[in-house]
Amino acid sequence: MAKKDQTYKSALHEKDGIEPPETLNKNSAKSIKFKRKRQPSVDDLVTGITSGNITDLSRAITLVESTNQTHTDKAQKIITSCLPYANDSVRIGITGVPGVGKSTFIEAFGSYLTNIGKKVAVLAVDPSSTLSKGSILGDKTRMEDLVKDKNAFIRPSPSGNSLGGVARKTRETIILCEAAGFDTIIIETVGVGQSETAVHSMVDFFLLLKLAGAGDELQGIKRGIIEMADAIVINKADGDNLKAAKSAKIEFNRALHLYPEKASGWSPKVSLCSALKQEGISDVWELIEDYLKTTTTNHYFEQNRNSQNTFWLLQTIEERLKSNFYNSAMIKDELQKQVELIETGKTTPFAAAEYLLSL
Amino acid sequence: MAKKDQTYKSALHEKDGIEPPETLNKNSAKSIKFKRKRQPSVDDLVTGITSGNITDLSRAITLVESTNQTHTDKAQKIITSCLPYANDSVRIGITGVPGVGKSTFIEAFGSYLTNIGKKVAVLAVDPSSTLSKGSILGDKTRMEDLVKDKNAFIRPSPSGNSLGGVARKTRETIILCEAAGFDTIIIETVGVGQSETAVHSMVDFFLLLKLAGAGDELQGIKRGIIEMADAIVINKADGDNLKAAKSAKIEFNRALHLYPEKASGWSPKVSLCSALKQEGISDVWELIEDYLKTTTTNHYFEQNRNSQNTFWLLQTIEERLKSNFYNSAMIKDELQKQVELIETGKTTPFAAAEYLLSL
Repeated sequence: MAKKDQTYKSALHEKDGIEPPETLNKNSAKSIKFKRKRQPSVDDLVTGITSGNITDLSRAITLVESTNQTHTDKAQKIITSCLPYANDSVRIGITGVPGVGKSTFIEAFGSYLTNIGKKVAVLAVDPSSTLSKGSILGDKTRMEDLVKDKNAFIRPSPSGNSLGGVARKTRETIILCEAAGFDTIIIETVGVGQSETAVHSMVDFFLLLKLAGAGDELQGIKRGIIEMADAIVINKADGDNLKAAKSAKIEFNRALHLYPEKASGWSPKVSLCSALKQEGISDVWELIEDYLKTTTTNHYFEQNRNSQNTFWLLQTIEERLKSNFYNSAMIKDELQKQVELIETGKTTPFAAAEYLLSL
Repeated sequence: MAKKDQTYKSALHEKDGIEPPETLNKNSAKSIKFKRKRQPSVDDLVTGITSGNITDLSRAITLVESTNQTHTDKAQKIITSCLPYANDSVRIGITGVPGVGKSTFIEAFGSYLTNIGKKVAVLAVDPSSTLSKGSILGDKTRMEDLVKDKNAFIRPSPSGNSLGGVARKTRETIILCEAAGFDTIIIETVGVGQSETAVHSMVDFFLLLKLAGAGDELQGIKRGIIEMADAIVINKADGDNLKAAKSAKIEFNRALHLYPEKASGWSPKVSLCSALKQEGISDVWELIEDYLKTTTTNHYFEQNRNSQNTFWLLQTIEERLKSNFYNSAMIKDELQKQVELIETGKTTPFAAAEYLLSL
């Protein structure tokens, strides 16, 4: 029990003779002090990140991912200070349905890259992770080698209710990773839903991982995703699968020729690999190097990054316009009233919209 | 030449001895007076519309379709006054790719309906009409009988740069047509792109017109459109086509069973018809009557209209939020500056968005 002490000035001062309640838990005081100590300043974090300190990088990413306004304000300052050190990287998006071997491929591909001297950051965009507690990259142990690799940094998908929110956090994390010296950013996503489009709009190169044999229908891959791909890599091309994989390669090559030419001037390629046996991995990297040569020469690389930035600018504005509007308490009230007026035939959706916007 | 007259008080008064210029063209004065006469008041138009005057209905629709603010303000007043007389109708959406026989079908179906005592309005949603000068319903002569029918009213698609704008105008036109006593509203759209979704969200019943034989791929019909359909009507089921049409019916019935049950509690039906030979047309109407029985009994009909209204309310708000923001002269300037700052790596899309929203 805490003893009364004249030198201890507390607002909770009790009269003599009355034993004060145990208002001060020594352990929590220690814990609070400890936490305070653990909150470095913006400058500390920027210095840490740009000198390649992984702990500081992780701390800054945690601020980016936070929903706390103080944290996100701090995160914005860090990102702005990191900007001059960012952008010098290759950003690679990798998609494919569950079971195609994404983790094994990224493990093999990432290890290959660190072996040839690259620094690799592996991120993920998985808007379902809030529900599923992270279905992809959530379990780092699936990338046993890469997780121990000093030149690799793995971060699971940020959580969030909306794809927009998750995507924003990942894009900001890319900047921080680049500032920390990672020159190859891999962004994994699942091969279903809208998250591919989000990832496609934040990467330089988009890779679709597939299996031989199973049709598009079975693999759950939508047509639009094949159109986005700069390369289709057929995984598990080994043993009994090899023959099927080879004929799948011919088929995909034929199919890709049917799509209109890309703005990048790059013709998408099909490649075989066995991530498990670590075969065909270097081919994938050579392919990406070819792509970089083509798109830096014709300036598409830079143009694409610029148009991606404009896309994200407009996207963010539009999301914020909506949330600012709908989150106003007055609008919430009035919206409900207008809905009732519409339902009873007293106004139209368009007149109600005009009214709400005039408030 | 106008003579100077002491009783005529004009600001353009000239000194004696100077012949005033011919400022007043008698013909244009006459024309202005004539035009003024042709602009009836809101009350005039509402009275006209609700007593079934087609000229007044057409005039009001022209105001709805206008981009002139005075016209649209007037249109809103007319619509609000018409609301108590609206809503008492069946709204039927009809889609199908070019060549499937939409015009012939609507001609046959519409004539059947007016014969059994219905009043039929035929509208269209075609956002491409600005470019193509109206690819659907633009040429009313394709519906020779219906256009002469006193109980039918045909109006081509409003023009507009955005689907949202075209759809809004059509939804408002529906209200005016209902107030004018039309109890069956047919809304035609093309079987490609996003316009089906817009039409689906403004009708009670959605009908997909198809041909036997040609696969979905060839007919350019997207999967989502089949999911929206309450009925698939296979047209041109006559002569040599009849056998193929019958087996297509079996196939479609089988395929429809694979889709999840609809919120309406209605199982989509497949029907055969020959619009040209006017066969199977009454079957389509019986099918729609069945649908109406089911959905009024289980209250889906009303619930669906309410949720459609809410959808349009939110849609309109979001479109207006965007246009209000981007059309501000200051934002236009600053947006350009922020884009440049992003391109030179001085800010991020997210920080730029925050800045623009704070102005």
